[in-house]
Amino acid sequence: MRQTLHHLAVTTQGQGLIDVTAPIRQWVAAQCVGAGLLTIWCRHTSASLLVQENADPDVRADLLAFFRRMVPEGAEYRHQDEGADDMPAHIKAALTQTQLTIPVEHGAPVLGVWQGIYLFEHRAAPHRRELVLHLLCD
Amino acid sequence: MRQTLHHLAVTTQGQGLIDVTAPIRQWVAAQCVGAGLLTIWCRHTSASLLVQENADPDVRADLLAFFRRMVPEGAEYRHQDEGADDMPAHIKAALTQTQLTIPVEHGAPVLGVWQGIYLFEHRAAPHRRELVLHLLCD
Amino acid sequence: MRQTLHHLAVTTQGQGLIDVTAPIRQWVAAQCVGAGLLTIWCRHTSASLLVQENADPDVRADLLAFFRRMVPEGAEYRHQDEGADDMPAHIKAALTQTQLTIPVEHGAPVLGVWQGIYLFEHRAAPHRRELVLHLLCD
Repeated sequence: MRQTLHHLAVTTQGQGLIDVTAPIRQWVAAQCVGAGLLTIWCRHTSASLLVQENADPDVRADLLAFFRRMVPEGAEYRHQDEGADDMPAHIKAALTQTQLTIPVEHGAPVLGVWQGIYLFEHRAAPHRRELVLHLLCD
Repeated sequence: MRQTLHHLAVTTQGQGLIDVTAPIRQWVAAQCVGAGLLTIWCRHTSASLLVQENADPDVRADLLAFFRRMVPEGAEYRHQDEGADDMPAHIKAALTQTQLTIPVEHGAPVLGVWQGIYLFEHRAAPHRRELVLHLLCD
Repeated sequence: MRQTLHHLAVTTQGQGLIDVTAPIRQWVAAQCVGAGLLTIWCRHTSASLLVQENADPDVRADLLAFFRRMVPEGAEYRHQDEGADDMPAHIKAALTQTQLTIPVEHGAPVLGVWQGIYLFEHRAAPHRRELVLHLLCD
C-alpha cells in the first residue's frame, strides 16, 4: 500500500458549484489501476465540498437558491468586517462538507452514475481555492 | 495492511431512516479482528447517511419531521420533472452525509454506545440503494 | 504503512465550540513525520465536529446563534425525556459532522491557515466527550 498527495487549485468566479469530478478522476486514474481510498480536503472555511446530481443544471440552481434563503445576508451577524457575504459563507460551509473520502475500484472513485463532486464557492468575489487530494492504493 | 471492498444493497420503502449498523458490523467483523479504517459511501444524491441515536424511536421521528419542515415540497423549485419530492431529496442529501469513515478497533467500528448508522431515504417511492464499504485492516 | 489509534477526552461546559486543533496536531506530530491520513470520530449524537475559522471569535458566536435560530427548543418535539435541549442537539449533530478525515503532510494535518478543528457541544450541561483518532502513516 502506498500513498500519494496532490494539491489541486480551483479558480472560482463568485457563488456557485464548480464541477471538479474530471480533474479528480484523471489524477486518480494516473496513480492507481486497482482498489484504493481517495480523500479530498478543502482548505477553506468560506468554500466547501458537495456531492450532487450531475444531470439537470436546475438542481444546482435550486440548491444555490435554497442555501441563500436559509442563510441570508443580514445585519444579525456580528462578523461583518470581511463583507456581508462572509458570515453566510462560513455558515454554508458548516452545513456542507470540508472533506470527502471515496473508495476507489478499478482505478476510479465509486461515484454513482448521477454523482458529481463540486467545489461550493460561497463568496461573491473571485477566489483561488485549494483542494488537497490524498490517495491510498495497492 | 490490506483493503477489501463490498457492495451492500439496501431496499427502502419511502422516506425514513433505515438502520444499517448490523450488516456493516457483521461484514467488518468477518474481515478484520484488529485495528482498521472503514469507509461507507452512498452512491446516490436523493438518499444519504446519518449517524444518530439508536435508542428512542421518537428521535428518528423528530429528525424526519424537522427535515420536512426545513425543506418542504413546493413550487419554488425549478427542478420538478422527477416529482415534487425529488428536489427536497437532493437538498436533504446536501445537508447530511454521503460518506462516513470510522476507525475500527478489535474488529468493530468505534461507534459510541448510542450511535447507529442509518441510510436516510429522502424519496417517497421504494428504491434499491447501494452502499460501497471499503475496509483497511492489518 | 502502519496505523495508530488514540482516545482523546474533551470536557465541555455547555453549548459552544471547543478548539481541539492543538492536542490533535500534537498527537499526529508525535506519531508521524511524513505523509499520512488522520481520521477523527466523535462518539456522540448530541455533540459533533466542525471545521471553522480560527481568527475572529465573532464567527463562532454567529455560528452558535444561527444554529439556535434554525433549531430552536420547543414543544414540537416528541422526544422530551432528556431535556428541552436534547432533541435540538441531535438535529444540530445531524446537520454538522460526526467525522473528519484529513490528509497529513510533513507530519501535520493539511489544514488551511484559517482552519481550526472544533468539538461542537450542543448540550447545556457539562459533559465529558470522547474523540477517537486514527492515523495511517508510512
